[in-house]
Amino acid sequence: MAADKLARVKDALKSFPDFPKPGILFRDIFPLFRDPSVFNDLIDLLYDTIKESSPGVQCIVGLESRGFLFGPLLAQKLGVPFVPIRKKGKLPGDLVSVTYDLEYGSDTFEAQKGSILSGQKVVIIDDLLATGGTMKAACDLVEQLGAKVDLCLVVIELADLEGRKKIPKPLKTLITF
Amino acid sequence: MAADKLARVKDALKSFPDFPKPGILFRDIFPLFRDPSVFNDLIDLLYDTIKESSPGVQCIVGLESRGFLFGPLLAQKLGVPFVPIRKKGKLPGDLVSVTYDLEYGSDTFEAQKGSILSGQKVVIIDDLLATGGTMKAACDLVEQLGAKVDLCLVVIELADLEGRKKIPKPLKTLITF
Repeated sequence: MAADKLARVKDALKSFPDFPKPGILFRDIFPLFRDPSVFNDLIDLLYDTIKESSPGVQCIVGLESRGFLFGPLLAQKLGVPFVPIRKKGKLPGDLVSVTYDLEYGSDTFEAQKGSILSGQKVVIIDDLLATGGTMKAACDLVEQLGAKVDLCLVVIELADLEGRKKIPKPLKTLITF
Repeated sequence: MAADKLARVKDALKSFPDFPKPGILFRDIFPLFRDPSVFNDLIDLLYDTIKESSPGVQCIVGLESRGFLFGPLLAQKLGVPFVPIRKKGKLPGDLVSVTYDLEYGSDTFEAQKGSILSGQKVVIIDDLLATGGTMKAACDLVEQLGAKVDLCLVVIELADLEGRKKIPKPLKTLITF
């Protein structure tokens, strides 16, 4: 049953060579949002993974912007809060921040103080694990708030980029390329 | 009942003076995602508005990135596709695009050709209507794809900016400031 759902989700993904630049094979998740039953399969798979790997989850954290596509829906299904991590300059109030390296230059993530409570068990969700830089930064940010990263969950893992090695927390991925 | 839900949603919003720059009173929607029952109230209100104002809806379109917080969830509840409109350079494949004016300079939105089918009845969702520039651009993009904007739906309307005057389609907003 789970294998059937996974096959349908995988079939719905589309690949685009040389996007956003030459040599990159871009995996596009948006086609699966066009088929409500496949999207439902994906949500079931993510929900079941959380229930199994982080049964005591108290907060879902989603990374801007594709983590926003799944995070609120899963948080609602689980009956727990959803908290965003955003790019610099987009969240108001008292913030914590972390700067991480990109291929060229660096970027900064921010979260609101008080958005995640100290000691809470957190699941961080995103669509893709590539080099692992953004997921590692998200883990650091959650820990700055005094919370515990119980699980990092992504839909697609690009295994040859070895991002998994950078993640200091339990990591589950649905589809590996 | 709907009035109670609306009151709870409104109470959960937070205001931050002088963000992102002096003179702007920023309305922060994220606190309401921290309370699963208030978030559920918001989804009920959006769902009921769509059922009433666009009963034949065939596709939900969400604007990057805060439209992604509600769009997929509502699409799933309605059993229709979800399609994103994104900032320039983020979507692969054959695209349609529209450029719109900002306070200083301009920005470009893109959508994938074939993502919305010609003739479909579409609801466009976003968190905020301010000057109306982005929502107007989204309407233009949906029409470029040959679809029909049945409803523009936002959570918060900043009435003194008169964005409503720019929107050539039916518009519903939950909360007006």
